[in-house]
Amino acid sequence: MSGSANKIDEIKKAISSYPDFPIKGILFRDVFSVLRQPKIFGLLRDVMVEHAKQLQPPVQVVAALESRGFLFGPLIALELNVPFVPIRKKGKLPGMTRTVQYSLEYGQDAFEMQEDAVKQGDRVLIVDDLLATGGSMSASCSLVNAFGAEVAECFVVMELSDLNGRAKIAANVHSLIQYD
Amino acid sequence: MSGSANKIDEIKKAISSYPDFPIKGILFRDVFSVLRQPKIFGLLRDVMVEHAKQLQPPVQVVAALESRGFLFGPLIALELNVPFVPIRKKGKLPGMTRTVQYSLEYGQDAFEMQEDAVKQGDRVLIVDDLLATGGSMSASCSLVNAFGAEVAECFVVMELSDLNGRAKIAANVHSLIQYD
Repeated sequence: MSGSANKIDEIKKAISSYPDFPIKGILFRDVFSVLRQPKIFGLLRDVMVEHAKQLQPPVQVVAALESRGFLFGPLIALELNVPFVPIRKKGKLPGMTRTVQYSLEYGQDAFEMQEDAVKQGDRVLIVDDLLATGGSMSASCSLVNAFGAEVAECFVVMELSDLNGRAKIAANVHSLIQYD
Repeated sequence: MSGSANKIDEIKKAISSYPDFPIKGILFRDVFSVLRQPKIFGLLRDVMVEHAKQLQPPVQVVAALESRGFLFGPLIALELNVPFVPIRKKGKLPGMTRTVQYSLEYGQDAFEMQEDAVKQGDRVLIVDDLLATGGSMSASCSLVNAFGAEVAECFVVMELSDLNGRAKIAANVHSLIQYD
């Protein structure tokens, strides 16, 4: 097993699971249990940054989804020495914005980015904690593409593989930890 | 002017202001404009970490408010080598939690922390981007105190001084940038 695989194994062991949260039948994987352990959180940062640094051509912008993506996106952007930009629910960002609608189980919601967040041709790394059904990640890719920018990769800490969210996403998807 | 004061001056210059957002009469200060500039964001990280490191007795836990506190809390916790724990709106955290109610302009809301987030006697640094009326920061202090833990400091990037939010807060408050 490589050094990185060993680290990922340690991180996976530190993730607590909670049955029937937020609703009955869901086994909730809690990434915050990693952040409560400084040594393990340090390993996670190292693995994330190492992975993001080796992407070619290099990442030019790091974007992250509110709110758990905000835990990781800024760390990666600082280490890559590139801008960090947020993807937020509609109505929370000031100034000129672009919006994408996406479908929820019941009804619709919308994400926004600021107009000056991304330039045409930028290679954008999109960061979140979890890939589940892929709805919000897929919407984020559409939003980045609406700027004429390219999604370098969709990067998540955890992926619920059996929900097959990555099938919805045209860009490359990379997860550190997979759950069946 | 000290080195730190010079850095803070550079950071303040990088914060964009938007009149009449989110409602008419509010001048919105956008911390995300700092995060879009890697050099300035690096200065902000340095100033935050330097400040947090010199607190005595040392900080034992970093807590941050969802969602913009999540941008900064993890960075500080990693550099201090202490646990990071979230303060979230009610219903978002799994497992056993503690809750504090707080008043909004109309009605009430509630914050939660996980039961194992903080221990009795811990010295907790509470991080957010902005101190305005002080309602959410004051509620966060009450929540930390409900664990028998101590608020080492309430630390924010920006403070809207004329709203006098710090008058609501029994703990020490430190802001990097003040607006009248």
